[in-house]
Amino acid sequence: MEREKALELVKAQLTERRYAHTLGVVETAVRLAKKYHADEKKAELAAIFHDYAKFRPVDEMKRIIIDQKMDGRLLAFHHELWHAPVGAYLVEKEAGITDREVLDAIKYHTTGRAGMTKLEKIVYLADYIEPGRNFLGVDEARRLADEDLDKAVLFAAGHTIEFLISKHQTIFPETFALYNDLAMKKEGK
Amino acid sequence: MEREKALELVKAQLTERRYAHTLGVVETAVRLAKKYHADEKKAELAAIFHDYAKFRPVDEMKRIIIDQKMDGRLLAFHHELWHAPVGAYLVEKEAGITDREVLDAIKYHTTGRAGMTKLEKIVYLADYIEPGRNFLGVDEARRLADEDLDKAVLFAAGHTIEFLISKHQTIFPETFALYNDLAMKKEGK
Repeated sequence: MEREKALELVKAQLTERRYAHTLGVVETAVRLAKKYHADEKKAELAAIFHDYAKFRPVDEMKRIIIDQKMDGRLLAFHHELWHAPVGAYLVEKEAGITDREVLDAIKYHTTGRAGMTKLEKIVYLADYIEPGRNFLGVDEARRLADEDLDKAVLFAAGHTIEFLISKHQTIFPETFALYNDLAMKKEGK
Repeated sequence: MEREKALELVKAQLTERRYAHTLGVVETAVRLAKKYHADEKKAELAAIFHDYAKFRPVDEMKRIIIDQKMDGRLLAFHHELWHAPVGAYLVEKEAGITDREVLDAIKYHTTGRAGMTKLEKIVYLADYIEPGRNFLGVDEARRLADEDLDKAVLFAAGHTIEFLISKHQTIFPETFALYNDLAMKKEGK
């Protein structure tokens, strides 16, 4: 799908503010794809569509998770997580994107998972560090993103976990799995 | 087993410093058992023996984990975790303690797990806040321990996770499960 057509489809689904965030993720994902020799077109497409389902009603997302037999654990965790797997489903169904790598990068952009592909890591990280983001630690994440993809994703996953703990919120098991996966790699296990 | 006999058995296994820590855990565990209406004798016994295997050689612990078909995931994580399940095994084998509740409180005192019993939580927490402990956050943990057992254990698990993340270390999945278990309860799920 052409960039302009994809952006048009996504713009209709998002608030102005979220669309601006999406453009930041697109710019960042393409830059990271270039830097880390991933497919730039796939990174661009996944980034454009990553928040496609962000504003769908919670009830609709819940129904899709159940009907499509997605990971049932999602329902016990915050619905903020649901737009990612539901988005991957809707982007295939409504926008006709069939590339499994692109769909998985959308699917795992919020929770992450153990064994993420390079493309998945790029979209996950671009979402975390795009220029519009502003939180304590984002500059360190940006610095690491220029240095080493895994180090940056480990940092982002660790900080996400710390943030959720500080709010006493539950943490989706795949986010822990992502953290442990990269921490083990770093330890050389 | 009588307290004095148990202390004698444990003292032979530990350094002086670790034995002093154990006495602190015993005192704290008995106090918490009283406060939260748990079995004080079981809390005392589990606390006395909780670090029984602390100074066993790593190779011996590894062999026991394999031979006794313990949770194989342990081997992929830091050997600092191994003394707890190995201790439960050795306390049964060498000291003749057969009470499953006491042995489980020893087994899970380091990693924790989802669905911990009251006794397990008491020993886990006593190990974290005994008077000899001195780290940032211990006062808050002590305050919470006087207020609500689950809140205090949630705090301890969260801080343990944050500490390991700050050192980029891997985190045993059951520690995450403990955190999520109590965070969900707090959310009322």
